[in-house]
Amino acid sequence: MALKIYLAGPDVFLPDAVQVGARKKALCAAFGFEGLYPLDNELATPTALAIFDANCRLMRQADVGMFNLSPFRGPSADAGTAFEVGFLAALGKPLYGYSNNAALYGDRVEAAMGATRRNGGWWAADGMSIEDFGLQDNLMLDCAIERSGGAALARYGDGSTADMAAMAAFRQCLEKLAAERGRPK
Amino acid sequence: MALKIYLAGPDVFLPDAVQVGARKKALCAAFGFEGLYPLDNELATPTALAIFDANCRLMRQADVGMFNLSPFRGPSADAGTAFEVGFLAALGKPLYGYSNNAALYGDRVEAAMGATRRNGGWWAADGMSIEDFGLQDNLMLDCAIERSGGAALARYGDGSTADMAAMAAFRQCLEKLAAERGRPK
Repeated sequence: MALKIYLAGPDVFLPDAVQVGARKKALCAAFGFEGLYPLDNELATPTALAIFDANCRLMRQADVGMFNLSPFRGPSADAGTAFEVGFLAALGKPLYGYSNNAALYGDRVEAAMGATRRNGGWWAADGMSIEDFGLQDNLMLDCAIERSGGAALARYGDGSTADMAAMAAFRQCLEKLAAERGRPK
Repeated sequence: MALKIYLAGPDVFLPDAVQVGARKKALCAAFGFEGLYPLDNELATPTALAIFDANCRLMRQADVGMFNLSPFRGPSADAGTAFEVGFLAALGKPLYGYSNNAALYGDRVEAAMGATRRNGGWWAADGMSIEDFGLQDNLMLDCAIERSGGAALARYGDGSTADMAAMAAFRQCLEKLAAERGRPK
């Protein structure tokens, strides 16, 4: 049985969301994996609750979670994707993250709104502190990935924030998973 | 034993984060509950991984999750808080959400960057679609709360985006929990 990978990310909001999912699933298949993509769900009545239930079912079926953590409408990952990192972390599944942006979280906040260092802290222009651990997003996301599989944090950036699908980084993530699992490419 | 409530939210980034946590815990106690606040963790070496591990331990100890879903550095909830909604949803614990902002997610995106309706969809100025279910954030968050306890979605807004602690909404959330659990106020 092919390893099942839940493909999480804001890709589902792209104008070509179905095609992007098909490309990611084809890449998974090329590595011997099976990609599970939220838009695969065929729902008679696609209410919010039906989509939620179907996504939770897909996550429970998955062996591994792979998360597009590209910044979405702000300096952090999409909130739905962050939810799914937490969901799969609690289920104890191996997690892999990738992004179209290699900058650190704090640097993104500083670039977006400005920030100052004072009294040993790092404060954004919104008056609230910035986590200063040199991570790529909120520590709960980075650390969940690091803790999940013994493997190093798998997160890559190709620097192109216009590429919301982050296909190059996604491929690197699959290569890392394949190297760990000993699958032929 | 008092019901243990995990107090999640971007409150931990406030300049008076410790005091805000103390106020929320005191409110919990006034209702006969015990609040568990991430900054309660006494860590010899507060590395990111140590904080992550301690927060996960607190979440596993909790009977209920209560989430400050106030928009944070964008139109959605804090990414760490979204992670924790997912984590506790997967553990099957009852979830309660509150916010300082009663506007719907799509309206916040439209206000922040502009949006247009075309071809049956709702498209933000970033070229990506906006979920159009009349919810307050990404459907995974709203629906996880709705599905978690049978209770109605408990989310309140007092309309003041300057109040990141959302104390009034938090109190309403506690009142709802107390009413369900039959605890004296």
